[in-house]
Amino acid sequence: MNTKIVLRPAQREDVAAIVTMLADDALGRGRERIEDPLPQSYYDAFDKVAHDPNIRLMVAEGGDGSVVGCLQLCILPGLSSQGASRALIEDVRVLTTLRSQGIGEQLVRWAIGEAQARGCKLVELLTHQTRVDAQRFYKRLGFADSHVGMTFRF
Amino acid sequence: MNTKIVLRPAQREDVAAIVTMLADDALGRGRERIEDPLPQSYYDAFDKVAHDPNIRLMVAEGGDGSVVGCLQLCILPGLSSQGASRALIEDVRVLTTLRSQGIGEQLVRWAIGEAQARGCKLVELLTHQTRVDAQRFYKRLGFADSHVGMTFRF
Repeated sequence: MNTKIVLRPAQREDVAAIVTMLADDALGRGRERIEDPLPQSYYDAFDKVAHDPNIRLMVAEGGDGSVVGCLQLCILPGLSSQGASRALIEDVRVLTTLRSQGIGEQLVRWAIGEAQARGCKLVELLTHQTRVDAQRFYKRLGFADSHVGMTFRF
Repeated sequence: MNTKIVLRPAQREDVAAIVTMLADDALGRGRERIEDPLPQSYYDAFDKVAHDPNIRLMVAEGGDGSVVGCLQLCILPGLSSQGASRALIEDVRVLTTLRSQGIGEQLVRWAIGEAQARGCKLVELLTHQTRVDAQRFYKRLGFADSHVGMTFRF
């Protein structure tokens, strides 16, 4: 079943909804601070994202106008592959109560299309080794689990 | 043994040396075009990189002034982790004749330091599953092989 959603660029008013989704996750929970008002650092980051022409932070809006999903796409110029840009997908989230309804798929398919329109030859992403469902999901959309994703945390 | 090198931002004159290193690789060979003159697309990509304040393309210069290594660092703003930027390392290469002399290590340690100075909480990278030596190298520098790196090629 494909839930009817509208994809649109995130607005400053969506920050709380996005952060709530980022925090509603076994891995994300310890990293976010859900307070009212939200820490200013989230809004500062949103402003950086909104002013960066190489970054698209998108939200999926449900039928009632509420935010039900998000995805960040970065377009990264570089020399390799004859100077083709690469695309990096980050922070894909769907409201836990609305999983398996095609919302994530619509977000990721939008990102693939946008990457292609921007001349990318490659879309890449990292997903935690424990997220086996996510890996299956991305494989179904045409991704290969070709790489090891390595992380260094400060 | 640590070969004495100087790290500096790549200049337009370095493009051919960088592309030669990108192509001198089992995985990169089929993706690059080494011609004289180089395809213009490489120079166009260099100009995009050079004008992007969030991207640092660095080269390692050997004692004779020649380029012996390179690395690209992208600083990516985003909402997660309380709005901390993330860093992505790409296109790490060292001249095949100068491997295992600490050049890659100096490049990656520079990138880690720069990421920290720019407020990142996380540095990430993808390395092909077949690059077992690279994975060992990154682990030695403090990276964890925590994620699956997924790729979609057009």
